Amino acid sequence: MSTTLSPTPRTQISRGKNRAVPDRERLHAFLGDALVAHLGVTVGSGEDAHPVVLPTAYGFDLDGPDAGGSLYLHGSVAAGWLAKALERDVCVTITELDGLVAARSGFHHSMNYRSAVVIGRPRLVEEPDEREHALALVVDQMIPGRWATLRPATRKELAATAVLALPLAEASMKARAEGPVDDPEDIEAGIWAGVIPIHRVADAPVTAEDAQGAPPEDVVRRATGLGAAAECSPR
Amino acid sequence: MSTTLSPTPRTQISRGKNRAVPDRERLHAFLGDALVAHLGVTVGSGEDAHPVVLPTAYGFDLDGPDAGGSLYLHGSVAAGWLAKALERDVCVTITELDGLVAARSGFHHSMNYRSAVVIGRPRLVEEPDEREHALALVVDQMIPGRWATLRPATRKELAATAVLALPLAEASMKARAEGPVDDPEDIEAGIWAGVIPIHRVADAPVTAEDAQGAPPEDVVRRATGLGAAAECSPR
Repeated sequence: MSTTLSPTPRTQISRGKNRAVPDRERLHAFLGDALVAHLGVTVGSGEDAHPVVLPTAYGFDLDGPDAGGSLYLHGSVAAGWLAKALERDVCVTITELDGLVAARSGFHHSMNYRSAVVIGRPRLVEEPDEREHALALVVDQMIPGRWATLRPATRKELAATAVLALPLAEASMKARAEGPVDDPEDIEAGIWAGVIPIHRVADAPVTAEDAQGAPPEDVVRRATGLGAAAECSPR
Repeated sequence: MSTTLSPTPRTQISRGKNRAVPDRERLHAFLGDALVAHLGVTVGSGEDAHPVVLPTAYGFDLDGPDAGGSLYLHGSVAAGWLAKALERDVCVTITELDGLVAARSGFHHSMNYRSAVVIGRPRLVEEPDEREHALALVVDQMIPGRWATLRPATRKELAATAVLALPLAEASMKARAEGPVDDPEDIEAGIWAGVIPIHRVADAPVTAEDAQGAPPEDVVRRATGLGAAAECSPR
């Protein structure tokens, strides 16, 4: 597999080409960092066809059976979107907001972000080992190391869960990570401009009402890693 | 307009009905709080039709010309998605992640979130006052009060910008805001479970390299409101 992303006509970035991130490694690092995907599926047909976009957890595996790696999604076998997602191509977009860009004009206001777009036909994962591995990756994407601390999935749970793999072959990434880009006249006018950096933080874990004891190491590590009760000075 | 959301068949929540939020007021409060929308448009036709999901800024107005309020999106007049979005129905989904739900089994792992789904045919906003008001709302959604501090948009800027209004008539909202919901056997086994709360925070504003002086009041207020250099103890 090439180390650069080779866009197809469908993932070729047409607007803001300067924001395109061609490195496969940066895509992988970003996928490892983000938490929420938005899955777009087409429902209805003919004139009534329209997309539905649903937020969802995800996992990914670079060593799976799909060339370029696999993005894994899961859901209830009874979910309405599931059959649609297997019949037609879908789009999964994963975005993290990194900052609000306060320019000198409304026109140049922007956001700093990282965003990956993956288009393709999902594959229903049926092989038991790949299914379980995919579910582990989805849970570990939320809290790294967690799956290994849990009891095995039951036959009933596995039967109620559908796992889809979307090949990462047709993927593109864009990122903006800079200050405002203003018109020379506005810069010369001496108006303030800058960025409000934004990121996700965690608070300390909250124990469930029906549980007791201290949170396990994997949960504490995740919360601390996301800044819970961490440094105090402005970063 | 009713104070409750009246789902159409397209926005009727089929899975996780217990997470449906029927109050229009909560939808409006959420739209006021979130920062990023994901716009799903259908591209291609026939067998080749597929959704493309793009992250975007947004604004909204409850007193606009659309019954139920208007969600405003903007983009370059040259953007490829623009024509598609006017030809067919689109879906805009706005999601904020509020927590990672660490259950006692992989199956019951979940996320706490708020999410709104709006489906409909966007209207190209052409009336000059509504266009400018919409652009002000998009900027103020990022940094409240900012538009009023900026120079007016130029004719050239306005000509380069397309503004779309999506009626909020066909909208649904879901939210999860609770601890893990585990099986009785797992609870009895005394395993820890809980939630890692997650939220967005800002850092102190970073002045652009080509700017000087202190950030203006609206920028400071936004950053502080999102927690920049604020309280240090675990919240």
